[in-house]
Amino acid sequence: MHTIPYLQSLISTEIEQEIIRINNTKPENLYNPVGYALSMGGKRLRPVMVLLASNLFSEEIEKTFPVAKAIEVFHNFTLLHDDIMDKAEMRRNQPSVYKKYNENVAILSGDAMSIMGYNYLLLCDSPELPAMIRLFSQTALEVCEGQQYDMDFETRMDVTIPEYLNMIRLKTAVLLACSLKIGALAAEAPQRTADQLYDFGLNLGIAFQLQDDLLDVYADQDKFGKKIGGDITSNKKTFLLLKALELADDHSKTVMLDWISKTEFDAAEKIEVIKKIYNNLEIRKITEVCIDEYYQSALNVWKEIEMNEEKKNELLYLAQMIMNRDH
Amino acid sequence: MHTIPYLQSLISTEIEQEIIRINNTKPENLYNPVGYALSMGGKRLRPVMVLLASNLFSEEIEKTFPVAKAIEVFHNFTLLHDDIMDKAEMRRNQPSVYKKYNENVAILSGDAMSIMGYNYLLLCDSPELPAMIRLFSQTALEVCEGQQYDMDFETRMDVTIPEYLNMIRLKTAVLLACSLKIGALAAEAPQRTADQLYDFGLNLGIAFQLQDDLLDVYADQDKFGKKIGGDITSNKKTFLLLKALELADDHSKTVMLDWISKTEFDAAEKIEVIKKIYNNLEIRKITEVCIDEYYQSALNVWKEIEMNEEKKNELLYLAQMIMNRDH
Repeated sequence: MHTIPYLQSLISTEIEQEIIRINNTKPENLYNPVGYALSMGGKRLRPVMVLLASNLFSEEIEKTFPVAKAIEVFHNFTLLHDDIMDKAEMRRNQPSVYKKYNENVAILSGDAMSIMGYNYLLLCDSPELPAMIRLFSQTALEVCEGQQYDMDFETRMDVTIPEYLNMIRLKTAVLLACSLKIGALAAEAPQRTADQLYDFGLNLGIAFQLQDDLLDVYADQDKFGKKIGGDITSNKKTFLLLKALELADDHSKTVMLDWISKTEFDAAEKIEVIKKIYNNLEIRKITEVCIDEYYQSALNVWKEIEMNEEKKNELLYLAQMIMNRDH
Repeated sequence: MHTIPYLQSLISTEIEQEIIRINNTKPENLYNPVGYALSMGGKRLRPVMVLLASNLFSEEIEKTFPVAKAIEVFHNFTLLHDDIMDKAEMRRNQPSVYKKYNENVAILSGDAMSIMGYNYLLLCDSPELPAMIRLFSQTALEVCEGQQYDMDFETRMDVTIPEYLNMIRLKTAVLLACSLKIGALAAEAPQRTADQLYDFGLNLGIAFQLQDDLLDVYADQDKFGKKIGGDITSNKKTFLLLKALELADDHSKTVMLDWISKTEFDAAEKIEVIKKIYNNLEIRKITEVCIDEYYQSALNVWKEIEMNEEKKNELLYLAQMIMNRDH
């Protein structure tokens, strides 16, 4: 069993080599943006999850490299197209693909990446390949559905917490869940364990996204990649905002709705006002409780998994790593 | 063996039912545009090709319905995203998806359609499914490459005829070729015959696209869905334009380049001038000769196919139908 940092360095090297190959593929105006998009990737969390899950059942992790690449390319495709839709000019302190090239290039390169995900997957030599493709493709469609709900929520003021949780399940959590299960399937894991890994990843994924919401407001600016309060400025319907709207008294609610409706405002002032309301309502603590509930659900699934201690602990380290992160 | 019109009505009904199902799927802002995009489709040429090829080897054509839908959904995905990239506001006399909804909706719905293509394919119960997915996915990536070359050509004045033929092979012909081969594979056709059907479709596809170029200039406006001369107005590097630039004397070439460089002009006047040059250079006849070469290549492959006469003739009717069309 390899350690997470070892798997991380292994797949990072592998992806770097893949980027070189992609950058040398023609037509270059299609593939160079793909290489650029992939080169922006950070900790390669999802491919590491694929390899880790595979490594729980097999020492031949090289067999799973194409699967890890499939997930990473698909993930970066969603970021690429999301950036067009969100008009996000920067990603990880670099210009996003549509900004560096142009929108048409970004659309088509993203389309190619989505298809390349399947092509990588098809390189995996496993008897479980049909089941893996089914899981991958089902997950991919769910991620699109999650993104649509997220966009729908922008213009809605009546989003409920269950609707929100369903949205982040689709947009974020299913891909983490899929990463673990598909790696397990590639290594011919027992069906029950593969399903448990999915549930483990799903709960962890929801906790992960809730924490992302929390960090947007309460992170340490020095350690945080993005600007603090971005979700507040853009009226993103996060768990924090929805919970605050639910709990606020009439006065605070009016203040919040007033700030939400403003088209011109001072961002710092808006962040300060909203954050103060969050503080008064103890939104941070409430969110932390909710995160912990999903984290504990993940751990409850984890406990049920039958596997030797060393391997099982590696899964626990993964969960801890995911929850102490800034990506 | 069913006739082409029967297969056409069969798959049209099937797709209409699928559209109803899609329109009832949530989130509706993701799936309604998918239903709309699919409802604009015309003769369902590609799915008919899938069913026809399948029917050459099996009477159970229902088994191949998901494959036909996969190809049709993928094809309509490419049209949807192409319309965004080309800023094409109309398609078949209806507003294109990005115009009816908006660009973000069109991007994401297209992404979903690309993935739905695979999901339909995965519903096909055939031992050849892995090979079918490989062919589909390889073809899908080639179509993206073709679209990129087409966009690259917009800003290039040194495009050669071989480069152009390679572009239309990728952008148009491989999907027609894939439609026949994937249908054949679904019905467990012999590998050699499946490959012959691919070659037949590929040559036919190139002839089909060249004829599309020709119709843009020389079609009967009453029978033509689009406005005559659209390619001339937009300086599209068609076979006709490239051939004319190759054959024109210095004076005519200067006139053409002059019109190409104009940003403001009277469309009717530009079409008239360019068409006159085409006429002087006998571009119509030259293009017809080139079309016929590819059509004859298709027929040469067709002759080699070992199959009973009735079935083989149905393939010939298909070729004739494709070459006498306005879609």
